[in-house]
Amino acid sequence: MNQRGKFRMARIIDGKIIANDILTEIKQAVDRCTRPPHVVFIRVAEDPASVIYVNRKQKVAHEVGIRSTALAFPADVTSTELLKAIDKLNRDPEVDGILVQAPLPTEAMQRAAFLALDPQKDVDGFHPYNVGLLAQEDGRGFVPCTPAGILELIRSTGQDFTGRHAVILGRSSIVGKPMGMLLMQRKPWGNATVTFCHSKTRNIVHYTRGADLLVVAIGQPHFVTADMVKPGATVIDVGINRVPDPQRSKGYRVVGDVDFEHVQEVVDFITPVPGGVGPMTIAMLMKNTLLAYQRHAGC
Amino acid sequence: MNQRGKFRMARIIDGKIIANDILTEIKQAVDRCTRPPHVVFIRVAEDPASVIYVNRKQKVAHEVGIRSTALAFPADVTSTELLKAIDKLNRDPEVDGILVQAPLPTEAMQRAAFLALDPQKDVDGFHPYNVGLLAQEDGRGFVPCTPAGILELIRSTGQDFTGRHAVILGRSSIVGKPMGMLLMQRKPWGNATVTFCHSKTRNIVHYTRGADLLVVAIGQPHFVTADMVKPGATVIDVGINRVPDPQRSKGYRVVGDVDFEHVQEVVDFITPVPGGVGPMTIAMLMKNTLLAYQRHAGC
Repeated sequence: MNQRGKFRMARIIDGKIIANDILTEIKQAVDRCTRPPHVVFIRVAEDPASVIYVNRKQKVAHEVGIRSTALAFPADVTSTELLKAIDKLNRDPEVDGILVQAPLPTEAMQRAAFLALDPQKDVDGFHPYNVGLLAQEDGRGFVPCTPAGILELIRSTGQDFTGRHAVILGRSSIVGKPMGMLLMQRKPWGNATVTFCHSKTRNIVHYTRGADLLVVAIGQPHFVTADMVKPGATVIDVGINRVPDPQRSKGYRVVGDVDFEHVQEVVDFITPVPGGVGPMTIAMLMKNTLLAYQRHAGC
Repeated sequence: MNQRGKFRMARIIDGKIIANDILTEIKQAVDRCTRPPHVVFIRVAEDPASVIYVNRKQKVAHEVGIRSTALAFPADVTSTELLKAIDKLNRDPEVDGILVQAPLPTEAMQRAAFLALDPQKDVDGFHPYNVGLLAQEDGRGFVPCTPAGILELIRSTGQDFTGRHAVILGRSSIVGKPMGMLLMQRKPWGNATVTFCHSKTRNIVHYTRGADLLVVAIGQPHFVTADMVKPGATVIDVGINRVPDPQRSKGYRVVGDVDFEHVQEVVDFITPVPGGVGPMTIAMLMKNTLLAYQRHAGC
């Protein structure tokens, strides 16, 4: 807990390398499958970010030998039509995983679509059945890809957070809550004391300064500064924020929720943005797709 | 945060009175139903505690006009037979709620039984589907009875814990985890900063002393002592522990996880044991049964 030397730097957790190792393993397992695992992406309307995300996922799927299909529905698709399509995929034995790419035109439609998925094919882990299995420490479900990927990053540091303080900034269903649930499980990767902070938390610095492990997922550029972290901590930055940068040809650059430059001088381990959590999410989606295949088709 | 006067006492949250108010409301609602709501209790083997619990629940159900049936299976019942019986109850339109009284002979059988319940009839809220709905802040599920009852006790104090620190001791699926999930929801009763402590937590006093709201569910008599709590806090004691007491005719008395006598001198609100959380659990079971009826039969 002493002041660190001026030139001390944290070890940077390289998500690209770790994700590539996982993808290599997945490719080897896929090569042994009797048919390629198959994931179907559902996309509604022409949300540009959704188009990019689905394309990126399809590209990685292709690289590891996983078959993927993208179904695009027009913006005026009805919930009935969408649910009918999902039902058909649920019953198709050639489909192992289904992913509904958020956002959908309405929150009600998005919720209905998630609920309509067969939990056994819910490779994103957003169906309440899978969320409940995670909370109950029942390993038969699917864990959401981003927290599952973060767990791999944490484990790559070789540290044991049993009994220590893990602080999660953000209480989303996609990152914050499942992350905390994983970290408190009675499992080798769990047993941490977990605090959930969020937009309403008073005196958030009190919690971040006490964190041995800090996972930041609040979507505010450079929210976590060097004075907010504990010397020697491990910091995971889930944020992906665009900030204006006239020096870049695109006019912006991507930064995390953590002030990486200064925080790295205080902590022991830190993830960069980009190249930290990002690559892990897609890798874990491939892992979940392989798992879905293995569970229902055998491999 | 000042030292309190020597004779200062906390206000005691009376679970009996609050539970009775809720039961009176339930009775009035049941009187308006076209038929009595109906809950079925499933019990396996002759676990004495289970017999007592089911009897107690049936007694309260009777008092509020809820119909109840107890099905007792022999210790050597097979999982297949049990699941067949559950399936029949799931399909019976005259059955609104089903409760499998834990413990069952094996954990595997218990887990299978919980998973077999129709989530719409799962008035205990232990099915992963309902657990997931709670985590996702989707109010269409059933909330486990003990944390739901505790929430009523907390609300009875008139305090707002938005942004303040709620510390849960215990990470069980029945109390600790759903309790924390409720307290962090983006709802009028939620928005607390929530920490989950448990048997592996290092320096637990650090957390309990910082707690504005402390919920204790670890099953250790008088674990929380006066020096572990923050002056002015609210303390909820979920523990029910038997300690030897030769002065009582039964040879024991029931105490909580909190050293009530001394802690009450420090905090603002506290629940007693017995007469705190206990009566609320059964009241909330009746509320969930009524809700199950209302949802599928109309009322």
